[in-house]
Amino acid sequence: MENNIYYGACVYPELWSDDIMIEDYDHMKELGMNLARMGEFAWSTFEPTPGNYDFSVLERSLELTRERGIKVVVCTPTPTPPIWLTHNHPERLNVNSNGQRMHHGSRQHICTNNKYFRERANLLVDKMMQVVKKYNHVVAIQLDNEFKAHTGHCLDFDCKKLWSEWLENKYLTVENLNNRWGTKIWSQEYFDFNQVVQPLPTPFIHNSSLLLNYKRFLHEKLAEFVREQVKIIKNHSDIPVTHNTGMFFDVDNELIGNEIDFMSFDTYTPVEHYENFVLNHERWRYIRNDTRYTMLLETSTSHNGHLENYGSMHDYGYVEAESFVTYASGTSAFTYWPFRGQRSGCEQPHGSVVSSWGDKTIGYDSVLKVSQLFKCIKPLISETVLIEPKVSITYSDRARTFIDNEHGGVYNYKELMNSFHKHFLDLNIHRKIIPEGHELNGTEVLFSPFMHNISEDYFNRAVEFMKKGGIWFVGPMSGDRTEEHHWHTDNGLGRLGELLNLKSSIQFFSKNKQVTGKAMGIFSELNGLNTLIEIDEKFSKGKVTSHTAQGQSFLVEKKIGKGLLVYLGAHVSEELMKELIQHYASEFRINEIIETSEEVIVFNRVDINNNDFQYWMVNLSREEKEIQLNKSFKNLIDNEIFEKGIHTLAPYKYLVLTLE
Amino acid sequence: MENNIYYGACVYPELWSDDIMIEDYDHMKELGMNLARMGEFAWSTFEPTPGNYDFSVLERSLELTRERGIKVVVCTPTPTPPIWLTHNHPERLNVNSNGQRMHHGSRQHICTNNKYFRERANLLVDKMMQVVKKYNHVVAIQLDNEFKAHTGHCLDFDCKKLWSEWLENKYLTVENLNNRWGTKIWSQEYFDFNQVVQPLPTPFIHNSSLLLNYKRFLHEKLAEFVREQVKIIKNHSDIPVTHNTGMFFDVDNELIGNEIDFMSFDTYTPVEHYENFVLNHERWRYIRNDTRYTMLLETSTSHNGHLENYGSMHDYGYVEAESFVTYASGTSAFTYWPFRGQRSGCEQPHGSVVSSWGDKTIGYDSVLKVSQLFKCIKPLISETVLIEPKVSITYSDRARTFIDNEHGGVYNYKELMNSFHKHFLDLNIHRKIIPEGHELNGTEVLFSPFMHNISEDYFNRAVEFMKKGGIWFVGPMSGDRTEEHHWHTDNGLGRLGELLNLKSSIQFFSKNKQVTGKAMGIFSELNGLNTLIEIDEKFSKGKVTSHTAQGQSFLVEKKIGKGLLVYLGAHVSEELMKELIQHYASEFRINEIIETSEEVIVFNRVDINNNDFQYWMVNLSREEKEIQLNKSFKNLIDNEIFEKGIHTLAPYKYLVLTLE
Amino acid sequence: MENNIYYGACVYPELWSDDIMIEDYDHMKELGMNLARMGEFAWSTFEPTPGNYDFSVLERSLELTRERGIKVVVCTPTPTPPIWLTHNHPERLNVNSNGQRMHHGSRQHICTNNKYFRERANLLVDKMMQVVKKYNHVVAIQLDNEFKAHTGHCLDFDCKKLWSEWLENKYLTVENLNNRWGTKIWSQEYFDFNQVVQPLPTPFIHNSSLLLNYKRFLHEKLAEFVREQVKIIKNHSDIPVTHNTGMFFDVDNELIGNEIDFMSFDTYTPVEHYENFVLNHERWRYIRNDTRYTMLLETSTSHNGHLENYGSMHDYGYVEAESFVTYASGTSAFTYWPFRGQRSGCEQPHGSVVSSWGDKTIGYDSVLKVSQLFKCIKPLISETVLIEPKVSITYSDRARTFIDNEHGGVYNYKELMNSFHKHFLDLNIHRKIIPEGHELNGTEVLFSPFMHNISEDYFNRAVEFMKKGGIWFVGPMSGDRTEEHHWHTDNGLGRLGELLNLKSSIQFFSKNKQVTGKAMGIFSELNGLNTLIEIDEKFSKGKVTSHTAQGQSFLVEKKIGKGLLVYLGAHVSEELMKELIQHYASEFRINEIIETSEEVIVFNRVDINNNDFQYWMVNLSREEKEIQLNKSFKNLIDNEIFEKGIHTLAPYKYLVLTLE
Repeated sequence: MENNIYYGACVYPELWSDDIMIEDYDHMKELGMNLARMGEFAWSTFEPTPGNYDFSVLERSLELTRERGIKVVVCTPTPTPPIWLTHNHPERLNVNSNGQRMHHGSRQHICTNNKYFRERANLLVDKMMQVVKKYNHVVAIQLDNEFKAHTGHCLDFDCKKLWSEWLENKYLTVENLNNRWGTKIWSQEYFDFNQVVQPLPTPFIHNSSLLLNYKRFLHEKLAEFVREQVKIIKNHSDIPVTHNTGMFFDVDNELIGNEIDFMSFDTYTPVEHYENFVLNHERWRYIRNDTRYTMLLETSTSHNGHLENYGSMHDYGYVEAESFVTYASGTSAFTYWPFRGQRSGCEQPHGSVVSSWGDKTIGYDSVLKVSQLFKCIKPLISETVLIEPKVSITYSDRARTFIDNEHGGVYNYKELMNSFHKHFLDLNIHRKIIPEGHELNGTEVLFSPFMHNISEDYFNRAVEFMKKGGIWFVGPMSGDRTEEHHWHTDNGLGRLGELLNLKSSIQFFSKNKQVTGKAMGIFSELNGLNTLIEIDEKFSKGKVTSHTAQGQSFLVEKKIGKGLLVYLGAHVSEELMKELIQHYASEFRINEIIETSEEVIVFNRVDINNNDFQYWMVNLSREEKEIQLNKSFKNLIDNEIFEKGIHTLAPYKYLVLTLE
Repeated sequence: MENNIYYGACVYPELWSDDIMIEDYDHMKELGMNLARMGEFAWSTFEPTPGNYDFSVLERSLELTRERGIKVVVCTPTPTPPIWLTHNHPERLNVNSNGQRMHHGSRQHICTNNKYFRERANLLVDKMMQVVKKYNHVVAIQLDNEFKAHTGHCLDFDCKKLWSEWLENKYLTVENLNNRWGTKIWSQEYFDFNQVVQPLPTPFIHNSSLLLNYKRFLHEKLAEFVREQVKIIKNHSDIPVTHNTGMFFDVDNELIGNEIDFMSFDTYTPVEHYENFVLNHERWRYIRNDTRYTMLLETSTSHNGHLENYGSMHDYGYVEAESFVTYASGTSAFTYWPFRGQRSGCEQPHGSVVSSWGDKTIGYDSVLKVSQLFKCIKPLISETVLIEPKVSITYSDRARTFIDNEHGGVYNYKELMNSFHKHFLDLNIHRKIIPEGHELNGTEVLFSPFMHNISEDYFNRAVEFMKKGGIWFVGPMSGDRTEEHHWHTDNGLGRLGELLNLKSSIQFFSKNKQVTGKAMGIFSELNGLNTLIEIDEKFSKGKVTSHTAQGQSFLVEKKIGKGLLVYLGAHVSEELMKELIQHYASEFRINEIIETSEEVIVFNRVDINNNDFQYWMVNLSREEKEIQLNKSFKNLIDNEIFEKGIHTLAPYKYLVLTLE
Repeated sequence: MENNIYYGACVYPELWSDDIMIEDYDHMKELGMNLARMGEFAWSTFEPTPGNYDFSVLERSLELTRERGIKVVVCTPTPTPPIWLTHNHPERLNVNSNGQRMHHGSRQHICTNNKYFRERANLLVDKMMQVVKKYNHVVAIQLDNEFKAHTGHCLDFDCKKLWSEWLENKYLTVENLNNRWGTKIWSQEYFDFNQVVQPLPTPFIHNSSLLLNYKRFLHEKLAEFVREQVKIIKNHSDIPVTHNTGMFFDVDNELIGNEIDFMSFDTYTPVEHYENFVLNHERWRYIRNDTRYTMLLETSTSHNGHLENYGSMHDYGYVEAESFVTYASGTSAFTYWPFRGQRSGCEQPHGSVVSSWGDKTIGYDSVLKVSQLFKCIKPLISETVLIEPKVSITYSDRARTFIDNEHGGVYNYKELMNSFHKHFLDLNIHRKIIPEGHELNGTEVLFSPFMHNISEDYFNRAVEFMKKGGIWFVGPMSGDRTEEHHWHTDNGLGRLGELLNLKSSIQFFSKNKQVTGKAMGIFSELNGLNTLIEIDEKFSKGKVTSHTAQGQSFLVEKKIGKGLLVYLGAHVSEELMKELIQHYASEFRINEIIETSEEVIVFNRVDINNNDFQYWMVNLSREEKEIQLNKSFKNLIDNEIFEKGIHTLAPYKYLVLTLE
């Protein structure tokens, strides 16, 4: 990936006349935009009837953009198979978890495991790349669009056959599957791989291993589709391949990330969840370890919306603050969806840069502000790099799958992680979000919360990491299930339990002060799914104080090699959780010479020329917030001097401070 | 329609012995009732096996009623096809919007587009009319019963074929359909009419034009069924044909109205929504412009109910007040459902005049009170006519369809209109509710709220109306979508925008003080789906005052010919909305010599002999309310004199005042 | 049934190694347990492929338990048919009330009416009994597991055929069915039994008789399955047969009870509904009149749970209090589910005695406490019997069916009965819960609330009961529907109405002070589905005081023979209801020499040696409660003396008091 930053928008040349496209590209240029995304829904334009390809619309736009110095992300249009692919072929359509077959219409209606669909999609991309490879201002190929945005499971009959094959490939013998899944329970044993059911509706809940593996099967099949598509693209060109994923979709982003060159993402987070907007910018960055490269490919100029939902409108000033976060966090593009509003379809009420009839929209003022910001900070960005954090938090779609399976009526992985991550924002701990497979070099403290299953590989690498001096903070709700979603055999925590040398463990769900404990001198209710252990006194750092479970430990600290294993078994109060994070990671706070209110987000960048530190900060709240400077600083945006002392930052305002 | 008013009840001669029917008809006569409705569910009695007709039960009741001077509404029994019509024929049954085929049982289980059903229904009605035409005390034929009370879409395979035909008939070529629907979006193009999908479940939302047209298709097919039935009836007799519709059902009442002689309606509104009870009496009156004739064919003596819902019981006195509204508003019948309670079925808990075993019910006291009222006011009604209002409000099922499609998660047409109409009740503005196609002669102010699409025809007529001096008040949420549910091409408001000569327009959804404005000297939050425009200063009458969208106009006034165009783009506060209505329509307030509290509803009638005004008023609230008389009046009910000054009206009490 | 009490747990020898089973049985013995339940899900272990039986796992456990003096309840494993029974045979699977066919997996996925399933189940049980009959420490055979815990209706096509047969058998001619069901309504007449629909989805509600009979059909078919199974078991052995039912499941427990030897039950009630825990112990005791024998076969040591629900954890001490209720109430077993936690499946989060890896669980302390309690009170129990109550309350699954059908959006039979029964707990009225068919000898006051239909048989027996001097308290909501769920023909209450000699009756649903009345000197709102009657003044004991329905009676008292008929037509306030119960049943209060707070539950037992009364009491609340002793008592648990006066009882503490 080239070292550049982008400002742009998504365009739909298949929908508009040449005149309008010229008007829009001219307008983009005028706004200082240097990126256009196109093509993701245009299958019927590129292949109106089977085998008849016509990329003239795409080529025209590639020429128009090239002429104007606008780079392009070209997308494969696989989320919208045309009617000729499904008419009279219901068997090619998605079947949802309720066993209901979808109908044609909308998007993602097809089963991406369908053989004929794969053939047509691969042929189409092959043809498309013959065209695209001629344009060297294409900076990336985006595969599809938001995989699984609207669909989860596919449970059609073809998937059943693939599922049997996948199981046979994984377990080799059905006896092995039965043993691994514990199917003696409820007489669930199978005698043949083709008997193994899909998780279709039953009177009560399926076997946890079945549920887990079906998700894994689908995640792997999707990665297989990605692999097939990438292979075809790479036959033609080495243009980097990406995909615009999102926090909500049921995919394994690490599996997808392994097949492509860099991750992109879409987010429409409202200001009420500003912390999630920030998390989005950190969630994808390290999935491809070697690149640290991501693009924000969709966000709104003002609000999202469709026929059935009028989205909330952003406050005046918020979009500018968003773009600041995007660039300050090391993200390479800030892209609106869409440039011109949709006239037909179902997203007419969605915000845009210009309306479908060409007027400036309610978001247009924000677009102008971001144009100014982009122009102003582009040189600052190009002269700095984001400082590599030494505190890592593992965010894992495998872990999510376990909590999707076993939510207990209360848990949602995304929400758990969002709250956990927010503590680091509040404390200004400089952190990175890493996938399970990410190398631990460079990490000094590793947090592994909400990972019911800790894989062999992850565990081994964590042990190595500790031996070299790392701090591994495990929990809460980590390590208590096997890779098949069972209890461990010999103790409640498996190899982690052995490493802790625990005497016994118990797990239960408590609430309303039933169980309380004390650690770091702080009393806390222990509300949630808690694992408590008996352990040698010397390792215990937090004990239960209530009558129920009295004397059990919920916090343990044990030296491993040069490093430290910290095990947190319980859900503790916000206060105690923050104290724990600070205790183990405080040396990685962003800076002590600047103290900020919680809603002021700070990114640390360093000038590559003189190694000067820069504090990129933005107030993401609706209220004025304080910042306390312990030295005197200069704002590189306008060279204003900020004397030592307390200053205020207006809502959505930002600064790039460096020591004066 | 003869000039008469009725008081009556629905009877079920197919369910009871001759003795009981005689007892009930005698009882009705004794109660002063002069109307009975019968037959709507009796198909299996009239045609127990295919082709064997037996109307003896109906004839016997027609004779018994004739002997007692009770007029009759005879119904066609098409909502309950017998088992012989569906057994082993699932393809004749309704398929709901979830794609689920209904089973036999209950009512409305059949697809009214099914060819065999139509044949049998038409034959049956033909045979029935051969009998009915002999009885000249039959005052109307009611078609079916509450079309679409329980079902919405029908999506079965036969409908798919009719849908293709309907589309071909409308669009002629599939290219035309693609262009009109904007199907380039999401690769939704069709190559053949038989490919066009029905709006069955998909992962996300269908194309807005598809959704809209499918509703229109079903509305037209239902009107076609009505037309077929009416034609058969008219072959035999010129007895007026009606249908008992309701506010909730997904039909186009104007289309149905065009096929029949007058509209009837059912309503079971509780006192908490008294304004909706009133709206029901105004909603249907002008659908057949030439008649101004409607009947209330079902209401309860006390409460509704069925196995799964015990309806709330009316307060003591409320039913009498209801009947006063019915007659004062010019409605020709007040009819209970049913006279005798249902012994079997599923509506056993429903209120009635007498219980299934013949005892007086909890509602019987109300029935007696209404008998007295009916006797007392019948002569007053016959000597007066309702004064024709000069303020019109368009209530349109086409407009409703747009909001059903694009509810944005917040809007419901019926609720929007109910609230809008209530302002007129509160202000005592004398108004009429008219359908889209209603002529505008006689109207001086026309309100067109919540009409996303303003049809060519409606627009042209409104322009003519203004040229002649009319005030056209358009909005909020009007004119912003084409007839295919798209944005307009050249400005956000199409021909309306051209007429306004607007410079630009924006639309967005705002809430919580994000956007505020000022008009008529009143500040207001602008919360909702707002369209704001830039326009020549001189036309602007209301401007945004908040930072967001500052300076845009939300209220515009422009002279057109001798008249005035008033465009309201925003949802304004209740206070401002009332001020606006008063400003443009205050000269049509019911009267200045009488001021009443909001819950006191006033109808203006005029004595046809001496042209004296009469103020028919009723307190529809649970509390005593004030009325202020600026002159001295006489109550024609009891000839009591009401001196100038403030008087009180007890809950549910009514007066017929005329100047002394 | 032998006269013994048990303490035990459910075990799963099919899931664990021989070593672990030995460890667990040893552990059970050590804990003083004397009961193990096993086998209910082990079909695939007992018959891995069709016709190949292998009971070695069961036999091994029967030997291990016998060696240790642990009695056994062996279960038939019919709730979990193996995959070979359903693979490629979807027609054998359950179809739910939405018409959706279930898939294999989980449990109860099969239709228990399926002929092939019945064959295989009967063969299996025959084979199993050949083994089981050799072990005379098997104290009971449990059929299946919680019939209908997860499924309600079955609506598959095979059931349709059985339904037609069942109807023909019941009604003989279809004309008779039509007459009895009142199918003239809505043209619902049938011409052939095979036309009669199942209650599958329709646009609106089915005929009440159809709904009622379909439930009855399923209830009888399930009893038929039970009868078949019992017959096979009895061919081999006279070991008593039981079933572990529960309050929630849609079965007719009286029908099932008639086929088996005694009822058992499962309950996991949290402390917030302690009254329901108590009700559970009284609900099943008299279903088999001759035995008064029940077992609690499943409860948790701490909490229930599965993948989708983390159950609330019991307070410390609550489980011990539960076991006290079990034994004091005359229930013969207190059994945990399960002894060892489940490693796989879907119930991993469920509480147990030991965890799946063998550690003590959070509930283990409770288990130890109950061991002590069991040891301590076993001799006390064996020397006493529960005093036979003279106040009876009818709890009927037939009555429940009527309210399931006609819930009116507000009623749930279980909740109504739970609240009604709680009044007796609060007042310490010594009561028994009896099924409809239970003989009335020994009863002095009979309460029959919430029985819409009073059968001929029940009515006749109640009349006989009154003639001999009994008090029959009928209502509220009793007697107002026929056995086909219609209104009665001649008065609103049928034969009950005749007996009351009522002049007229009305029924309606009221709320919010619309209707009020007075009885026993107490004013009360009459909120709910009320039946009010006109009756000879001398019989009226409670009259309406509001304007609506003024002067109607809601409470009537009439001498019948030596006894009394009390009819309560209305839902009265808690205060009045308690006053009424006390008025008619106060002589059966548990005792006047002890007064306790409401949450202190008291059972009266009598020493069989000396006829001394014992007051077994337990505080089931989270707070300390008072007891007032009007004499001096001794606690037989520890021989502590309780002087006359007020004492306090800590949360969950219990006493066995006898006069000193």
